[in-house]
Amino acid sequence: MKKIFFTVGPSQLYPTVEEHIAKVLQTDLFSMSHRSAEFSEMYFELEQTLRSLLEIPSTHSIFFINSGTEAMEITLRNCVEKNSFHISSGAFGKRFLQSAKEVGKQPETFGIDIANIVSLDTINIPKKAELICLTQTDTSVGMAIPVEEIHQLKKKYPDKLVAVDTVASMPYVNLNYALLDSVFFSVQKGFGLPAGLGIMIVSPHALEKANYLQKKGYDIGTHHNFPTLKAFADKKQTPETPNLLELYLLGKVAKDIEKVGIEILRKITDEKAKKLYRLVERCDGFAPVIVNKKYQAPTVIVAKFVKDNFENLKQWEKETGFIVGEGYGANKETQIRIANFLAHTEKDVETLANMLCRL
Amino acid sequence: MKKIFFTVGPSQLYPTVEEHIAKVLQTDLFSMSHRSAEFSEMYFELEQTLRSLLEIPSTHSIFFINSGTEAMEITLRNCVEKNSFHISSGAFGKRFLQSAKEVGKQPETFGIDIANIVSLDTINIPKKAELICLTQTDTSVGMAIPVEEIHQLKKKYPDKLVAVDTVASMPYVNLNYALLDSVFFSVQKGFGLPAGLGIMIVSPHALEKANYLQKKGYDIGTHHNFPTLKAFADKKQTPETPNLLELYLLGKVAKDIEKVGIEILRKITDEKAKKLYRLVERCDGFAPVIVNKKYQAPTVIVAKFVKDNFENLKQWEKETGFIVGEGYGANKETQIRIANFLAHTEKDVETLANMLCRL
Repeated sequence: MKKIFFTVGPSQLYPTVEEHIAKVLQTDLFSMSHRSAEFSEMYFELEQTLRSLLEIPSTHSIFFINSGTEAMEITLRNCVEKNSFHISSGAFGKRFLQSAKEVGKQPETFGIDIANIVSLDTINIPKKAELICLTQTDTSVGMAIPVEEIHQLKKKYPDKLVAVDTVASMPYVNLNYALLDSVFFSVQKGFGLPAGLGIMIVSPHALEKANYLQKKGYDIGTHHNFPTLKAFADKKQTPETPNLLELYLLGKVAKDIEKVGIEILRKITDEKAKKLYRLVERCDGFAPVIVNKKYQAPTVIVAKFVKDNFENLKQWEKETGFIVGEGYGANKETQIRIANFLAHTEKDVETLANMLCRL
Repeated sequence: MKKIFFTVGPSQLYPTVEEHIAKVLQTDLFSMSHRSAEFSEMYFELEQTLRSLLEIPSTHSIFFINSGTEAMEITLRNCVEKNSFHISSGAFGKRFLQSAKEVGKQPETFGIDIANIVSLDTINIPKKAELICLTQTDTSVGMAIPVEEIHQLKKKYPDKLVAVDTVASMPYVNLNYALLDSVFFSVQKGFGLPAGLGIMIVSPHALEKANYLQKKGYDIGTHHNFPTLKAFADKKQTPETPNLLELYLLGKVAKDIEKVGIEILRKITDEKAKKLYRLVERCDGFAPVIVNKKYQAPTVIVAKFVKDNFENLKQWEKETGFIVGEGYGANKETQIRIANFLAHTEKDVETLANMLCRL
């Protein structure tokens, strides 16, 4: 019997994925040349579907890369001459900060205290910061920054670039891309796809910055720098031989999501999130890690065990076939993380909540 | 009806791939956590299989990345302080050179004249060069550097690092890794797998150099620098969420290849290569691009049309279901490229050669 995965990524597959893969096996997709007209048609259709699903304006470019972690490196190389500013609530915000150091930038950071969260507009962002880096939803702690706070940044700092890691919240998160310069995500979380593809949505302002840095002789990367990615994207190609299967599947699943309606799925996600937060707030065995409701991530619910329940949980998983995520890093055995993605049905969330409450 | 792909990559799938994918659909592989013990077991097994298949010594590390193009960038950042030296016969050698410039190194180059090929030992390699970069088989022109010439480099230049792009020749090419520092390839060519995975085989000497460069404050990359890749490889993990399907398939196909015997498959490849070179040498319609037999790539046969036959070829492909590669770049309509990988059967090579000769 197949298990039901509430892990935070890789997670439960979107229900149509296996059917799409089975169909691919009847075709020649795996042997298709990435320089063929056929490939460019598939690429064009995928791009159109993503633009329509996520309401990405035509001003912004879409790039296909390999992971969210890679997107951090690309963003920093292409958007920063010297100074980036990182607002971080957990491990993935810290990873973004570390990448800035590794590529030789001079980052500064504001660490959000998750026990006492402040809104973005109270954070003092240095004048010299060229790029503001945010993790919209940090999977390690289950904290989400409300999109309204993110959208305000551009109004307050029109000259700064804004980069947003939405790895744990896309396509649930509903962003105004006109106010953002580099938004990136991967597909093994909210889209319910196999792992192995990253997507970047990049503004003209960010592209200009990359061109400026390249002219000044900065190292903006090789095949995955913005100008090269843009030149290939304009031809509906990728610089290197890409993960064709993933591009195909993303196009198909994005269409499947559109058929149901992304707004409907976002509402259902909100309903499921309510149920899951009720579980961790009301059941004796758990307490939520993020207490301030405004900042509780709808897509990743993180809770600590009130008593030592790790072994019981493992036993329960074996018996039920439901699998939830372990705590991040050092919290492996003291916390649980429950994903709430499009692939998680209301019925399964209900069952999970009821069963876990009795743990 | 499915076509038969003699294109140079993506190409014909290894015959067992579709069966392996169909089996994966019965499992929970796509939802497997990349931080689980289960994943590390799969990783360990894959690593062992590759070591055994390719005779990779235990001194050398194996890293899983995303593409051959990415491997060039990683190699240059991690093995070069200032000077690399590039021996190039075609477009992929040039790509390696361009990457060196893009990451701010000072590369020098020797361009092999494919009409008058000289052996490696006659090339004057500057004293200051820290890394010698080679494209063992360049898919754009179908030229291969004999492995014996490559192995001699380390004896002549024991202090220099040697990097070899084997994207178009692995696992046919039989290397002595003890004499090499960064060997890289992807899986959509010789292994007959779907595209989306790169592999690097890295020496202790190269790792030391990366550590030295990192300590000196050089930008060696972020999640895919050698020290980070090594730290995760030691845990049998990857730094980011990887392409799980590809790792799984590579492990399975490498085992399938071992069952048949890599030496047998290499001999069959040689036999098929003879047939294909006979085709392009003896048939009126073609002439080989590489005339010197010593440097003719066994895995990629490139020929020019003697008369304008591009449209005839396209018509022939439609009628027969056989697809060959077009010429590279500007040679798209004036040359053909025929792949000769493990997935190409002797029977299909025979049929192809007979039919093409009548074009």
